[in-house]
Amino acid sequence: MPPFETGEYQGRLAKAKASMAGKGIEVLLITDPGNMNYLSGYDAWSFYVHQVLIVAQDRDQPIWLGRAQDMNCAYATTYLDSDNVVGYPDHYVQSTERHTYDFIAGYLAEQGWAKAAVGTEMDNYYYTAACQAAIEAGLPNASFTDATALVGWVRAVKSAREIGYMKEAARIMEIIMRTAIDAVEPGVRQCDVVAEILRAQARGTEAYGGSYTGILPPLLPTGKGTSAPHLTWTDEPFRTGEATILELGASRLQYHCPMARTVHLGPPPAKLADTAKVVVEGLNAALEEARPGTTAEAVEAAWRAVISRHGIEKASRIGYSTGVNYPPDWGEHTISLRPGDKTVLKPNMTIHCIGGIWEDDWGVEISECFQVTETGSATFCDFPRQLFVKA
Amino acid sequence: MPPFETGEYQGRLAKAKASMAGKGIEVLLITDPGNMNYLSGYDAWSFYVHQVLIVAQDRDQPIWLGRAQDMNCAYATTYLDSDNVVGYPDHYVQSTERHTYDFIAGYLAEQGWAKAAVGTEMDNYYYTAACQAAIEAGLPNASFTDATALVGWVRAVKSAREIGYMKEAARIMEIIMRTAIDAVEPGVRQCDVVAEILRAQARGTEAYGGSYTGILPPLLPTGKGTSAPHLTWTDEPFRTGEATILELGASRLQYHCPMARTVHLGPPPAKLADTAKVVVEGLNAALEEARPGTTAEAVEAAWRAVISRHGIEKASRIGYSTGVNYPPDWGEHTISLRPGDKTVLKPNMTIHCIGGIWEDDWGVEISECFQVTETGSATFCDFPRQLFVKA
Repeated sequence: MPPFETGEYQGRLAKAKASMAGKGIEVLLITDPGNMNYLSGYDAWSFYVHQVLIVAQDRDQPIWLGRAQDMNCAYATTYLDSDNVVGYPDHYVQSTERHTYDFIAGYLAEQGWAKAAVGTEMDNYYYTAACQAAIEAGLPNASFTDATALVGWVRAVKSAREIGYMKEAARIMEIIMRTAIDAVEPGVRQCDVVAEILRAQARGTEAYGGSYTGILPPLLPTGKGTSAPHLTWTDEPFRTGEATILELGASRLQYHCPMARTVHLGPPPAKLADTAKVVVEGLNAALEEARPGTTAEAVEAAWRAVISRHGIEKASRIGYSTGVNYPPDWGEHTISLRPGDKTVLKPNMTIHCIGGIWEDDWGVEISECFQVTETGSATFCDFPRQLFVKA
Repeated sequence: MPPFETGEYQGRLAKAKASMAGKGIEVLLITDPGNMNYLSGYDAWSFYVHQVLIVAQDRDQPIWLGRAQDMNCAYATTYLDSDNVVGYPDHYVQSTERHTYDFIAGYLAEQGWAKAAVGTEMDNYYYTAACQAAIEAGLPNASFTDATALVGWVRAVKSAREIGYMKEAARIMEIIMRTAIDAVEPGVRQCDVVAEILRAQARGTEAYGGSYTGILPPLLPTGKGTSAPHLTWTDEPFRTGEATILELGASRLQYHCPMARTVHLGPPPAKLADTAKVVVEGLNAALEEARPGTTAEAVEAAWRAVISRHGIEKASRIGYSTGVNYPPDWGEHTISLRPGDKTVLKPNMTIHCIGGIWEDDWGVEISECFQVTETGSATFCDFPRQLFVKA
C-alpha cells in the first residue's frame, strides 16, 4: 500500500492540475519516477522501460500506463483504481522495430485527447528524444508544451508526513556515516568499506528499513581522486596520508537525506585542515542565511562571502532541492543554490547544501541536508560538522 | 587507468566508425554511459548531468565533453589525451534558463561540424527530448540520424578480456546468490537480506572487488509480490509458506553477470514445484538451442515449445544481451530473445536468459547468463538450476 493517505495524493494532484491550467496543459505525461511516485504512490524498478503517468484535467485519477508485466506493481503500490492501470504488450519493450510511444499516442487518441494540449517532461532522463518524436508523429493534431519541472515545483514544499520520512532517513544517514568513518582504515579495500555502507543503507534502523538512493553507489573518491567528486570506488586500499570524501545518502521509502564528510588517515596537511575549517565556516554561514523569505542565491552568496574572504574561488552551485527520488539523481532539478536562482525559500522546502572545494589534485567536502523552518533552518542530521582525522 | 589496453579501445573505435560510415554519419554523439565507457574507459557517476562522447570520422580519438567539475574523472579513467577532454561551465547544470546542448551545439560548430551529418542516440535515457530540440536549434544546417543502437551492436561480440571480466563477475554472482538464499528465513526482514546481498556485491572476492550493477537494487518480490517481477524490497519479514524471487546481479568493472533463482520457505505448493520444473526444462532447452548460427528467436522458441507442452503461455521476451552497463539497466538494448528477433548468434555474444512465469498472484523465475561459444553455449555461473526449498 502507498505510504500516504489517498487524500494527500489527491491534494498533490489538485496542485499539479492548477499548475497545468496555468500553462494551458490539458493532458500531462509524467515520466520522472519521483513524480510518478509523488502523484500515485508507484514504486518499482520498471523505469528502464517506457512508462508514463497521465494526468488529465477531465479525469479524477491519474492513469498509469506501462509494460503489461508491471501492472501488478501498479496494483501493489498505487491508490489508483484498477481501470486506471493500463498495460502495453511486451513486443514494445526495447524494440528496434516499434516505439512504445506509438502505443501511448494511440491510447491518448482513443481517450479523446488527439487534439489536446499535451505537456511532456522534455528534459527528463526517462523521456527520450525518440519518445517526443513518436508522440508528435502519432498525434499530429495535438499541441505540445514543455512541462519538465512542473511537478517538481509542486513537490518543493513538503508535507508533515514527507518531512517525517526524511527525518527517518536522517536517522539512517547518521548510522551510515558513522559506519563509513569507522570502516575507512589504512590497508582496507575501498570495496569493503562500500560493502558496509550499502549494508547500513538497507538495514536502516530496528524500527524501519532503508531503501535505495537516487545516487546509488556511495561516492568516495580518495587520495588524488578527491579532486574528482563523482568517481566511484575501486578495490584499491585506503592509504595513510590520504583523504577520502564520503558523499553518501540514506533513503526511507525513496525520501532522501544525503550527507558528505571528509576523513583523513593520519595527520592532515595544513592546507586540508585549514580548507576544511573554511568549508565548515562557509556551510554554517549558508545555513544561517537559509530561512523563509530569503532566496536560493542569497544562501550561496553567504557561503561565497566566507570562502572569498579566505581567498578561495569556486564556480559550481552548492546545493539543490531533494525529496522523493530515483536514480540517477536525488536532486529535484528545481531549486539550485547558485547565483541567479531567485527562488524565495518557504517553510518545509528541503535542500542539500554542499560545502565543497576541489583543487587540481585534492578536495574537501562537508554537507548538510536541511529543512526550511518557520523561522530559519534545521539540519536533518545531528553529526559533527568537521574534517575527521583518524590517527 | 582504464581496464583495457589502448589498442582495444582503438579497435572498438574503428568498428564504430565503420558502422557510422555505413549510415553516412560524420559525427556521433554518444550519451549511453556504457557506450562512453566502451569507447573511452570513462567511468563515473556523472551521467545525471548532460555529458557526451563525440566520435568524429576526422579525429583519431573521441572527445569527452562534460561538466567542468567532472573533467578530472575523465583524466582519471580514460585513455584520451587531455586536449580531448572538454568541460562546460556549471551554470548549465540542471538550469531552468539554458540547456547544456546549447553549449554542445556551439562546440560542434567551432570544431567545423556545423553542417555535419550527426548521429544521436535518440532512445537513450541520457539523451532527452530537450537535448535533441536544443541541438537542432543550435545546428540548423546539420542533418540528424538516429544512432540509438549503433555502438550497442559493436559491443555485441565480446573480446577475450571482456569475457574474462564477466567470468570474474560470475564468481561474485555465485557468492551473492548463496548469501541471499542462506539469508532468506522466516521472520527476517527483507531489508536485512538485501543488506547482505549488497554487501556481497561490493566485497566481491578476495582477489578483486565488485562494482555496482545496472539494475541496482536487488529485485526480490516475495509472497503475492512474486507476480510483480520489478518490485523492490520493504522492511516486512519473510514468511513461511511464501516464495521469493531473487533476481540479482554482479558486476566487475561494470561488466555484468546477472542470475535469478526462486526460494520457498517450507514445503512448496505443487503448482509452484511443478512450474519450477517446467521453467528449468524450458531454460535448459533454450541453452541447448543457443549456439553459433541459430537465431535469437529460435532460442525463445525452444523455451516456448517446452512450456506450451505443459499448457503454459507466456508473452514476454526471455532474455537480452548484457555486458558493460550502467543504471537503470544492465541489458544492451540490442539482441532480445523473442519472436521476430532474427539476430544470428555468434561466438562471444553474452546473453541473460530468463525462464520466468508470472501468474496473477504468484510467480517463479530461474535464469542464466551465458556466453555463445564456438560450438554451443556455456553458462557463466555454476549454480544449481532449481527451486530452492528451505524447510
